[in-house]
Amino acid sequence: MSGDKRFAMTGIGGYIAPRHLEAIRATGNTLVAACDPFDSVGIMDRYFMDARFFTEFERFDRHLEKLRRRGDGIDYLSVCSPNHLHDAHARLALRVGADVICEKPLVLSPWNLDALQEIEQETGHRIYNVLQLRLHPSVQALREHVAASDERHQVDLSYITSRGRWYFVSWKGQPQKSGGIVTNIGIHFFDMLLWVFGDVRRSEVYLSEENRASGHLELAKADVRWHLSLDPADLPAATREAGQTTYRAVDIDGQAFEFSQGFTDLHTRVYEDVLSGGGFGIDDARPAVELAYLIRTAPVIEPAEGRSHPILTTGS
Amino acid sequence: MSGDKRFAMTGIGGYIAPRHLEAIRATGNTLVAACDPFDSVGIMDRYFMDARFFTEFERFDRHLEKLRRRGDGIDYLSVCSPNHLHDAHARLALRVGADVICEKPLVLSPWNLDALQEIEQETGHRIYNVLQLRLHPSVQALREHVAASDERHQVDLSYITSRGRWYFVSWKGQPQKSGGIVTNIGIHFFDMLLWVFGDVRRSEVYLSEENRASGHLELAKADVRWHLSLDPADLPAATREAGQTTYRAVDIDGQAFEFSQGFTDLHTRVYEDVLSGGGFGIDDARPAVELAYLIRTAPVIEPAEGRSHPILTTGS
Amino acid sequence: MSGDKRFAMTGIGGYIAPRHLEAIRATGNTLVAACDPFDSVGIMDRYFMDARFFTEFERFDRHLEKLRRRGDGIDYLSVCSPNHLHDAHARLALRVGADVICEKPLVLSPWNLDALQEIEQETGHRIYNVLQLRLHPSVQALREHVAASDERHQVDLSYITSRGRWYFVSWKGQPQKSGGIVTNIGIHFFDMLLWVFGDVRRSEVYLSEENRASGHLELAKADVRWHLSLDPADLPAATREAGQTTYRAVDIDGQAFEFSQGFTDLHTRVYEDVLSGGGFGIDDARPAVELAYLIRTAPVIEPAEGRSHPILTTGS
Amino acid sequence: MSGDKRFAMTGIGGYIAPRHLEAIRATGNTLVAACDPFDSVGIMDRYFMDARFFTEFERFDRHLEKLRRRGDGIDYLSVCSPNHLHDAHARLALRVGADVICEKPLVLSPWNLDALQEIEQETGHRIYNVLQLRLHPSVQALREHVAASDERHQVDLSYITSRGRWYFVSWKGQPQKSGGIVTNIGIHFFDMLLWVFGDVRRSEVYLSEENRASGHLELAKADVRWHLSLDPADLPAATREAGQTTYRAVDIDGQAFEFSQGFTDLHTRVYEDVLSGGGFGIDDARPAVELAYLIRTAPVIEPAEGRSHPILTTGS
Repeated sequence: MSGDKRFAMTGIGGYIAPRHLEAIRATGNTLVAACDPFDSVGIMDRYFMDARFFTEFERFDRHLEKLRRRGDGIDYLSVCSPNHLHDAHARLALRVGADVICEKPLVLSPWNLDALQEIEQETGHRIYNVLQLRLHPSVQALREHVAASDERHQVDLSYITSRGRWYFVSWKGQPQKSGGIVTNIGIHFFDMLLWVFGDVRRSEVYLSEENRASGHLELAKADVRWHLSLDPADLPAATREAGQTTYRAVDIDGQAFEFSQGFTDLHTRVYEDVLSGGGFGIDDARPAVELAYLIRTAPVIEPAEGRSHPILTTGS
Repeated sequence: MSGDKRFAMTGIGGYIAPRHLEAIRATGNTLVAACDPFDSVGIMDRYFMDARFFTEFERFDRHLEKLRRRGDGIDYLSVCSPNHLHDAHARLALRVGADVICEKPLVLSPWNLDALQEIEQETGHRIYNVLQLRLHPSVQALREHVAASDERHQVDLSYITSRGRWYFVSWKGQPQKSGGIVTNIGIHFFDMLLWVFGDVRRSEVYLSEENRASGHLELAKADVRWHLSLDPADLPAATREAGQTTYRAVDIDGQAFEFSQGFTDLHTRVYEDVLSGGGFGIDDARPAVELAYLIRTAPVIEPAEGRSHPILTTGS
Repeated sequence: MSGDKRFAMTGIGGYIAPRHLEAIRATGNTLVAACDPFDSVGIMDRYFMDARFFTEFERFDRHLEKLRRRGDGIDYLSVCSPNHLHDAHARLALRVGADVICEKPLVLSPWNLDALQEIEQETGHRIYNVLQLRLHPSVQALREHVAASDERHQVDLSYITSRGRWYFVSWKGQPQKSGGIVTNIGIHFFDMLLWVFGDVRRSEVYLSEENRASGHLELAKADVRWHLSLDPADLPAATREAGQTTYRAVDIDGQAFEFSQGFTDLHTRVYEDVLSGGGFGIDDARPAVELAYLIRTAPVIEPAEGRSHPILTTGS
Repeated sequence: MSGDKRFAMTGIGGYIAPRHLEAIRATGNTLVAACDPFDSVGIMDRYFMDARFFTEFERFDRHLEKLRRRGDGIDYLSVCSPNHLHDAHARLALRVGADVICEKPLVLSPWNLDALQEIEQETGHRIYNVLQLRLHPSVQALREHVAASDERHQVDLSYITSRGRWYFVSWKGQPQKSGGIVTNIGIHFFDMLLWVFGDVRRSEVYLSEENRASGHLELAKADVRWHLSLDPADLPAATREAGQTTYRAVDIDGQAFEFSQGFTDLHTRVYEDVLSGGGFGIDDARPAVELAYLIRTAPVIEPAEGRSHPILTTGS
């Protein structure tokens, strides 16, 4: 793993950028340029004080071209912008001779993946997706455990992460920009489930609202009842009483799968992985993008007995 | 001090907003609405999940009017927006029957203070400025010490706070929006000096650049050599070697005045002060606004012997 | 009618602003300031080269306050901004001591009218709505004709005005900003119908899509089948073949009501009317705002025999 | 000249776009997509109702890529955006397999031309600059006349085109976006002079303000005193009294060169020229870009006797 790579970043004013800045620094590399229409980016000073900053994408593009032409072009672009801009920003990087480390979801719709793969082939550069749960030791152990037998598992996935009213005003609340709750919030977990339990055989959706979604999945090795919610009313009473606003639980065959620790530096692990020749590419990202798309365009149906998630059934 | 006041906030997506959110919560009050054109405001969830959020100022205005009409209008507006918007946001608050707690500088130009005072009188509501150094125990002690004698003091003020290139791309680097380094960065210290050492008798400016300014002040009880800089090259070698990017020093009669501790919760102290009937109003804010304006419009002259700040003289 | 009134304008970069500029000039008055976030406003040079221009609403607000304080405040604000901003811009005007001439729809939702009326009373200033069809000689003649008897009329209103795909990308295609087709496009005609034929007794909606709406109204003196469309496919064949993209027809008791002429300078007539002590105020604007709101929130039902508009029935 | 080319356009909300729309239609071609952050683009309906429209550059980019991939990519991009975005928009076009017809100035700084030429070579696509004066019959005749002898000419160029205060608030008033008056306003005339009278031997600048510039050029075959102004005070009295706001004059050896007619459809002529295999490319655009850059970065000096433009000398 080399420590002298040159990075640029889009979306540096946003929520997830600090983890990427941390990862770039922790792997011994340098940020040379960044872009965001929002100019409240004082965080740059904590990491890379000499980096250039642009509020207009076109000027950022010109700068990266200039670097390329004079022989010190960037090696990687870290894409932290709103979801619907991911692929355009990735294209820019490929065209200026760089690889891409892109936040999830890589794209909103599966056919955009084909378009990116063609440009990968034209340019010889690669796009890596941040699928950090695959680097979580507990998840990796679970995957091995599941792979070791032919057993079929009964899984309940619950992810309730309260969001205030700002969320629905921001780009995250606009499905054409974020993909909606299933794509924006759920994709991590869908990717984890697919990676651990295998392909989708069948998918049913029982609830599909702006701030809640619920359904059932038959995967190669598991039946999954899943529930995603941004509504604090969905939190278990115990969680609420503890003053917490997020509840993340995976129950496997009646047992809680513990993976609440070990989240802090997964972005750095992703960067190490990519920089040492690993990384998850477009084909890795595809199944979850396809599943999220399938779910958000599916008809909402009534669940058969026992197929709906307990939170949906009981109302909490 | 009442704990059931209703607040709104402008500039909630920016750098200083978290301290105001913390202060509102710490004083037992509530944020009900916020506005920022930038929608990366997930921080709201950590403090006030039920607050409304608006990206358009006009809609925020409508919402505050609606609250007022139905009898649960806001009590205070916390103004954390870019400097050039402070007075417009303050006016909105006064018009909807609220008081204002406004970040520094209250306004960019002294005559805007007169305009605000007229609207204070028309509406019967008040504007308070965040002048948190006046609540710093060490600064308060210094003021009493100075007041206790007729002695004249020799003061060197140095404030070097490194900023990367983003700063000059953002609104902070545009003098018509920020007021430039003297107003945006220096005003705290000018207010402190005036508050401790009294009125301006004479002001000279020896350097006035985008990222550095230097000059001399004769105050009622002190001669002050001051130097402000955003350039890391101005940091003392020891500071740089320690990996620090900010150097803040006030030397009084050859002795370092120590006030590096006690900064963390000054915003909360400001809120407590205002809510308990204190607070610094427009007349309090005026001297530093006038001085900053005087300095940024002054001709740059050659310093007489001994009047220029050591950093300017020696180049570091 | 005085010719030395001082005007300001919001939305000067938009589609309708030129008619207001023309009206201000034609009535011998002056534009002193204007605001629009879009800076492509070269049209100002054709009318008022000395007017100030602002891209930030807050700075425009400050400027109008400054004018007011020094005694040469504006007399009128012309509001040409997107619909959802009308009431906020009108409030600004009332607060700086000006009257308002506001484009239609005055507001999106009826309760916003109450809020504006309260501020009218607080400030003593007035809001006038551009209801230019009421100044059209043919419409005025029709109104007198209808008033002269107790006869009940059978009316078909058709307004097909083709819009390209940009329309649905712009604010006009976002119902929370424009009110949707019924409010943005239809309000002129609903106001005309109510003004001529009297109050709503009953309203039914048979079609409510992004680009088409259709329904039936029982007014005091007429049964109205109405159809609004932005879809060129709804144009009569003859219109299409003539290369025209708009079809506007009112049939009364089987006869075409001709009012296609006389549209060109109605905005100037509106200004003359307001400036000479006339003008249509909030109470005048209310019925059509209420009807548009009623229609866009109504359930879509199946039409009874003979109640649906011919275009809806035949598909063209 | 083929009439079935597919065009896209950036800057369609701006001042110059209608002439390009007219030219695309007049040459029998089609606009399929357009982009502008400003959404007041109703003009599209007058020309190409079926064209897609985007307010975000990244989504426009994605759409053009999609067209390219499915085999019906655009043939040309018409670049009508603010000057500082020209080269980024041109790059996008070359990358999606299209040629470019770009408004003047092609770029703000000469080295950007080199960058564009490299991408032309990489992609095999071409960039054409709108240099419409070269297609003006009178200018062409003048060029032939000058070429026919070795005579040296004495030229006075005056271009006073009044602009209101909005101009300096808009991007046109920001030198880093427009290049300032010499580049934004003057480049047409500098290109014409260079094209007619040959290379620059010497350039002197006597005035360089935000809204006025003046100087002297020694070209291969002419001495030129030039004066550019946006200030109505510079208009000749006769022009002002006639109520006109623009004065454009070229005096050659004491005689007025008449070219005020024939401007109306030059954009269509430019399109015809490009589409039939002609067009002015990067090398054609270069001399004027270099001269404008030279002038705006030159020191302002005192003119020697007789070298300054009469307007500068007499103050009008």
